[in-house]
Amino acid sequence: MSAAGMKVVVSRNLGPEAMPILLDNSALEVVLWPHNSICERKWLLDNAPGAVAILVMLTDKVDAELCDAAGPSLCLVSTMSVGYEHVDVNELSKRGIRLGYTPDVLTDAVADLSVMLALMAGRNVKETAQIWPKYEWAPFGFCGRQLSPSAVSPTRTAGFLGFGRIAHATLARIVPFGFQRALYAANPATPPDAAQDAAHAARFGVREVRRVPLPELARESDVVFVLAPGGAATHHVVGEAFLREMKRTAVLVNTARGTLVDSDALARALGEGWLYGAGLDVVEGEPKVAADHPLVAAPRCVVVPHIGSATTETRIGMATMAATNLVNGLTGKEMPAEFKMSR
Amino acid sequence: MSAAGMKVVVSRNLGPEAMPILLDNSALEVVLWPHNSICERKWLLDNAPGAVAILVMLTDKVDAELCDAAGPSLCLVSTMSVGYEHVDVNELSKRGIRLGYTPDVLTDAVADLSVMLALMAGRNVKETAQIWPKYEWAPFGFCGRQLSPSAVSPTRTAGFLGFGRIAHATLARIVPFGFQRALYAANPATPPDAAQDAAHAARFGVREVRRVPLPELARESDVVFVLAPGGAATHHVVGEAFLREMKRTAVLVNTARGTLVDSDALARALGEGWLYGAGLDVVEGEPKVAADHPLVAAPRCVVVPHIGSATTETRIGMATMAATNLVNGLTGKEMPAEFKMSR
Repeated sequence: MSAAGMKVVVSRNLGPEAMPILLDNSALEVVLWPHNSICERKWLLDNAPGAVAILVMLTDKVDAELCDAAGPSLCLVSTMSVGYEHVDVNELSKRGIRLGYTPDVLTDAVADLSVMLALMAGRNVKETAQIWPKYEWAPFGFCGRQLSPSAVSPTRTAGFLGFGRIAHATLARIVPFGFQRALYAANPATPPDAAQDAAHAARFGVREVRRVPLPELARESDVVFVLAPGGAATHHVVGEAFLREMKRTAVLVNTARGTLVDSDALARALGEGWLYGAGLDVVEGEPKVAADHPLVAAPRCVVVPHIGSATTETRIGMATMAATNLVNGLTGKEMPAEFKMSR
Repeated sequence: MSAAGMKVVVSRNLGPEAMPILLDNSALEVVLWPHNSICERKWLLDNAPGAVAILVMLTDKVDAELCDAAGPSLCLVSTMSVGYEHVDVNELSKRGIRLGYTPDVLTDAVADLSVMLALMAGRNVKETAQIWPKYEWAPFGFCGRQLSPSAVSPTRTAGFLGFGRIAHATLARIVPFGFQRALYAANPATPPDAAQDAAHAARFGVREVRRVPLPELARESDVVFVLAPGGAATHHVVGEAFLREMKRTAVLVNTARGTLVDSDALARALGEGWLYGAGLDVVEGEPKVAADHPLVAAPRCVVVPHIGSATTETRIGMATMAATNLVNGLTGKEMPAEFKMSR
């Protein structure tokens, strides 16, 4: 560390692979939250003054207060996350502060988990995994729904709420399970693009990729993957109306944000059998999720604790990208992933 | 039912899709175990006399005693299972009794489950699924291993112990996750076939499919799928020697038979970190599997209760095939799946 270096505040130890990117850079004076726990707000505000850059986790709020505390020196924020709900991007934009984030590097990890949850929901793993001590074999005992097609159910359609990179990676993975069609619902502000849909169908080797209205997505899909951003525009887009349209044999997977799904409606839908099952990496109200959460209590509902990107390999990739975003942004090189502010 | 019909004994109600194949056939006199539970041995022996065919589950033993009870009229046994450990095939062969079983129809269901368990083992779902109420986010908290490749771990090799239809279906499913190589160990009695390996590599779109000795299979694979038959020849083939060769980052999946894996060795291997995790649909000693089973107690070990074929779709397919095997075998038509006895 050099007392003459540019001060950067880092809210969490990024591990042995990524920290050297910051610590070994003699142009930087790194001020690191010293504990293995979520960074305290007070520490962040106390240490911000004079910082040119702040590297945060999705557990740290980046807002006007933090920018004010840092003062006019602050020109860059780097978050080790693909989501940016914790960052007031308008505030950064207004002040001309650049934002780095970590998209793409977690695409495969989240796509893997999306397929896992589709399988776990169909096989009702939450309940079957509990029954072995009282197991008695029966021809139709503990039977779930099959992700793959079969003689009695020969077609499979995947539905995507949001059709970005993670959706594409998920679709690629499930095609050899026997999916022949992909339907998706997209941001209404984006114009339809039939030529791109045809190109996607060819790329993924399915008969059809088609943008559809939400009710058709719900009605036609054997599995619905929720992979759209959170926020007000998508709040409870999977609510009672959507769930009532779903096939009774279908499963819902949410690896995006809990706010897209109406918890009470989904719990009721599972209780009453509007759809077969659900696999959720994210739920409303997380991380405060206990046994009385409506979706933890719901039948045939698998809930895992927001581990979409939680693989050692991917987190090293995210930490490395967050550190590199910061260093490159400060030294005039291109950032691996700069968030483009709309103005 | 006709008193003049051929007597067939059925050890379990096959459900509304398959039972009519038997009940609506006027040539048959169906004697059906009347309860929704595992058929009692005494009932089976008491009702066997004079039967021309017996339809059994994997929970019923077919041996000399049952054949003797049925008497010389018995010419066909149909089991609703792909496994036949419960059937004394030598005894049937000696007596000229044909055997129908239900392969292939469960291939997709078991392949689906094999992929699910590979993902669940890597993500350590057994433990992460328990932690949400005390969740605190950390950059490397709850991190498992990634099934897909990544910048820090760019190659993926799948290992198959046994390389039949289910292995092929499993390989097809994981290729788009980023697997570039498939290695397999096969029955030593089968000669190697490099041309077929090359054809498989082309069919599945991987760089290489290659038969290897067990230590190489263990050493090179990022995930090992156990998909060989049970029995004496494969007993504990995955034991301490095999497990010690595995990568510390690899996972083991067993969707075949519990006897192939040495439970105590695997529990120790997981406890000491010789490999990362395991996903098991079958364990030694099932169905008597309680919390003190070494593999239920082992860390990073996901155990589900032999639900490989447990989807409604597949069980309908198996029940239909078992009933059709019986009817066709008795009426001179080809059986959908007749077990070929070695003589």
